[in-house]
Parts: sequence; structure tokens; C-alpha cells
Amino acid sequence: MPCFFPLEIISRKKMRTSGFVAIFFLIFLSVSSAYPGWKKQYNPCKQLVLYFHDIIYNGQNAANATAAIVAAPEGANLTILAGQFHFGNIAVFDDPITLDNNLHSPPVGRAQGMYIYDTKNTFTAWLGFTFVLNSTKHQGTINFIGADPIMVKSRDISVVGGTGDFFMHRGIATVMTDSFEGDVYFRLRVDVKFYECW
Amino acid sequence: MPCFFPLEIISRKKMRTSGFVAIFFLIFLSVSSAYPGWKKQYNPCKQLVLYFHDIIYNGQNAANATAAIVAAPEGANLTILAGQFHFGNIAVFDDPITLDNNLHSPPVGRAQGMYIYDTKNTFTAWLGFTFVLNSTKHQGTINFIGADPIMVKSRDISVVGGTGDFFMHRGIATVMTDSFEGDVYFRLRVDVKFYECW
Amino acid sequence: MPCFFPLEIISRKKMRTSGFVAIFFLIFLSVSSAYPGWKKQYNPCKQLVLYFHDIIYNGQNAANATAAIVAAPEGANLTILAGQFHFGNIAVFDDPITLDNNLHSPPVGRAQGMYIYDTKNTFTAWLGFTFVLNSTKHQGTINFIGADPIMVKSRDISVVGGTGDFFMHRGIATVMTDSFEGDVYFRLRVDVKFYECW
Repeated sequence: MPCFFPLEIISRKKMRTSGFVAIFFLIFLSVSSAYPGWKKQYNPCKQLVLYFHDIIYNGQNAANATAAIVAAPEGANLTILAGQFHFGNIAVFDDPITLDNNLHSPPVGRAQGMYIYDTKNTFTAWLGFTFVLNSTKHQGTINFIGADPIMVKSRDISVVGGTGDFFMHRGIATVMTDSFEGDVYFRLRVDVKFYECW
Repeated sequence: MPCFFPLEIISRKKMRTSGFVAIFFLIFLSVSSAYPGWKKQYNPCKQLVLYFHDIIYNGQNAANATAAIVAAPEGANLTILAGQFHFGNIAVFDDPITLDNNLHSPPVGRAQGMYIYDTKNTFTAWLGFTFVLNSTKHQGTINFIGADPIMVKSRDISVVGGTGDFFMHRGIATVMTDSFEGDVYFRLRVDVKFYECW
Repeated sequence: MPCFFPLEIISRKKMRTSGFVAIFFLIFLSVSSAYPGWKKQYNPCKQLVLYFHDIIYNGQNAANATAAIVAAPEGANLTILAGQFHFGNIAVFDDPITLDNNLHSPPVGRAQGMYIYDTKNTFTAWLGFTFVLNSTKHQGTINFIGADPIMVKSRDISVVGGTGDFFMHRGIATVMTDSFEGDVYFRLRVDVKFYECW
């Protein structure tokens, strides 16, 4: 819980010294937080690196496909991504999440939601999705939204909430295209950095 | 405002004792917050239980329908939910919200947004919607996103923000399917638990 | 970082007085935060007023259009907004953002995402979008979701996260329709008020 941050530092030190020392420590912390540039020093309170794998239905890969185009602009169809950088396509997905970059590794959960190609002169998507994690290590969901300028090597989206092990968490996810094969397969590496843990 | 949480507890007690007592109380709180498992003890700062009612357009119920399928995968149409667990359907809705489980109770607001069926081997939806509350008791909006594994009895999504009476609030909503009739009607019970109130 | 709010006030005052004074000041703050109505006094920690411009594709304006209808209810098409207050239309957009109300001013970024017309008896939309700002003054993204009752003069949506200059920010955006021309062009004025800055 973010509000306890300065206090938790004290408590983690298993403070047995008097209240006065604690109070001066607290005041010291409060003063140091006012230094210009301090905001650049945030460290995640929790961090996860995960991969997810998207195989788009193209009319011939029904058995393997994990995503499908479900909306398209006038004149386009649902088995070929639209012209103009796929502007106007909405795809729905249920993609396996793995701990490494191997599509065939045992999945630790599913990435579920949608992406929307929303630009006519480059590849950019708008993302709204959830990581549903279900492994021995993590149980819970993480919710994401944000703009994904696909051609940029590393791009940031918002982690807007979570449930279970990620109850009320917030943070930033750094997304990278780890691999792709034509228009059918892509793999994203997602570095989930929580800055607000509860 | 979350940061005042420990302080507010003090202030609510209409503390008239000396600063020293308050300080030791504050320190006690900070220490107790470090107990393992403490995080499971969060109590909502505000809670609402509401129901909403979704009637999907099926080609024959235009007058009553509160939701419509507006996107579907290749080969599906917009009056019948798609095969493969409706994978790829997007529905837009404007559903009445009631205080109890009766569709005909006076609505206290509308649930507005979309759901996306996003799995091929079970019923799972991705939700993005808003409660627009407009009653003598509540004025404001509550914004939700998250994964909804429909076949699970009780599932959690994120409350990512609010306006009006719910200004800047965050929390968790526990969603349960309270009733359904075929593919046309379902009713959700939503237990909105705010853990960050302002 | 929100948790330091009361402490930062102290530190901003470049406090050189003794810890005791600070402590009583802190206690005073905590007590004053309990006054009824205090919550209405929040001031934004950062504020931006921006305009964005949406030109919907209507079959004839392909060169200028910044948005396209990509989903529609049964019986509607993708070049004319649907009947019944456009209920069921989903539009994808990539709109220029300007500092003033002139479509031809130099853009400072793009508004990217979608809107969903979700009501049958009035104009209401559900918004999910991102401001991607890229100017000398601001670099970063701001993520929004919420209900937009278009016919209401001023309506509030949630700012659920941000990246770059807006790292982890949250707030409220007040949206106003600044101008519109038929069904093809509209301009929104967005007053972004951050109440949680990092």
C-alpha cells in the first residue's frame, strides 16, 4: 500500500530505537524526497518479464490461430489485414504467455483482449488486454491499456490495475516485438514493472 | 486521498491527546503494517453492490434489447453469437443498473461499454465499461476493465478510476453471473469494493 | 509520489525548525484533512488543456479522414453512422492534437484509440484512447477511459495512467465538444487534470 512507504521502511528495519529517532528519520526522508530529479530514481516494487505469442487467423490456420480479425474498415475483409497499415482492423486474442521466447514452452497464463490498428501512415496499435496468470508462482490478473507504436523498438503502456497476487497494483509495461513472421505470427516481450504494490 | 490513511485514523478519533501519544500510535501502526499476511486484511473504504441486466439483440427483440453484436469473426453474423464459444464477438451495451436482482426495479444508472468474447475453448470475455450512476444516493461514474472468465462463479476485475462521487477512486469489482436465459439475457451482480478513496 | 504529499509540503517550506514543530504541523494537517467537504478542495498537481480533431470517413473523404467506422450493428454499413443515435458503431481514430482550437495549428501529438456509440436513445459514447504527445514541451503518453454523454456540455472521464513525462500519473479529464460539423467533423477540448503526479 503506497501510503505506508516511508513508514514501512522504518518497520522493515525492525526498529527498536526510540520514537524520536524514527521521527527524525521520517523527516529526513521527507526532505530528501524534494530534491529535483528525484522522480527519476523510482525502482519497481515488483517486476515480471513475460512473453506472449499471437497467431492471427488468415483463413487457413484455424487450428493454430490464437487471434482473429473481427472488425475492418469499409472494403476490407476479415482474413487479410487491411491496407493502409491495417488501419481500422480490430483483432481479438487469447494468446499463451510463456516465461521465455519459445512458443512451445509451458504457458503460465493467457493474454486476453484486443488490439486496434489505428494509424494510416505507420503501424500503430491501441491495446486493451489482461494477463491471466495461473502458475505455481503467480495467480491473478494484470490489466493493461496504451498506445503501441509497433515500429519503435521499446514502447511503454500503462498497467492500470490487477487482482489476486497483483491486487490493486499499478505500473508501466515496456513492450518489445521479440520476433515476427509476416502478418501471421508475432511475439511480444513484456517487462511489467510495478511501482505501486499493495 | 490514500496518503492520509494512517493520519485519518488518528483524526477520526478526534484526537485531543498530546502529539506524543499520536506519534507513538503512528509508529505502532507502521510496525503492524509489516506483519506477513497483513496485505490480506485490506478493508474497502467504500462498497456498492449493484446488478446490471443485458438483453442481446437477436434479430427479433429490437424493442427490448440493450446490447448488440457489432463485430464477429469471418463467417459469423450479427444476430447469432458466433460458434467456438462466441470467440471474436464484440457486443456494445447500455444496460440498466438496479439495486436488486429485478430487471424491472427502478434503475439507478446505466452500465455502458463493451464485452469481447476472446476464447475459443471456453466462455471468457474481456470487459471495458462504465457505471454511470444517477440517483439520489450516487452521482458519478465508475470505470472498469478486466478479464471475465464467465464460467467461474466469482471473478475479479479492476476499478481503474471514477468521477463525481467516485472521484479518483480505485478498487476491485467482484462479478458473478446472477442469472441467464439462453444466449439472450444475463444478469451480473457486481460487488464494487473501493480500496482507494479520495 | 502521492504518499509524500503531507511531507512534501513540509519539505517545500525548506523547514529548518526543529522536528517538534514539524510533527505538530503534520498532526495539524492530518486533523484538517478530516473536515467535511475537504475532499472538494483538491488541486491538480499538473494540468493541460488540449484539443483534438476527428474527421470521420464517409466514403468520400479518404484523404482527410482521421477516423473510420469499423463495426456496426446488423443492417448498418461502414460509411454512414448507424440509425438509433449510432448505437453499435465503433470508430477507430488517429486524430491530431493541437494547443488551440485550430485544426491547422501544428500538432503536438496524436489522440489514438476508439469510441463506441453505446446508447439507443441519445448520443453517448464509450471512449478508450491515448494521447501520444511529442513536442518540445511534453514527451509521453496519457491513457483515458470513460463514458462520454456527448450532449452534456462538460463530462468527466478517467485518466488511468501515463508514461514518459506522465509516468504513473492519474487524474480526471473534462471533455467538451468545442465544435462539430454534421456527422463528419468534431473537435473536443480536453482539460486534463492530474491529481496524482510522480
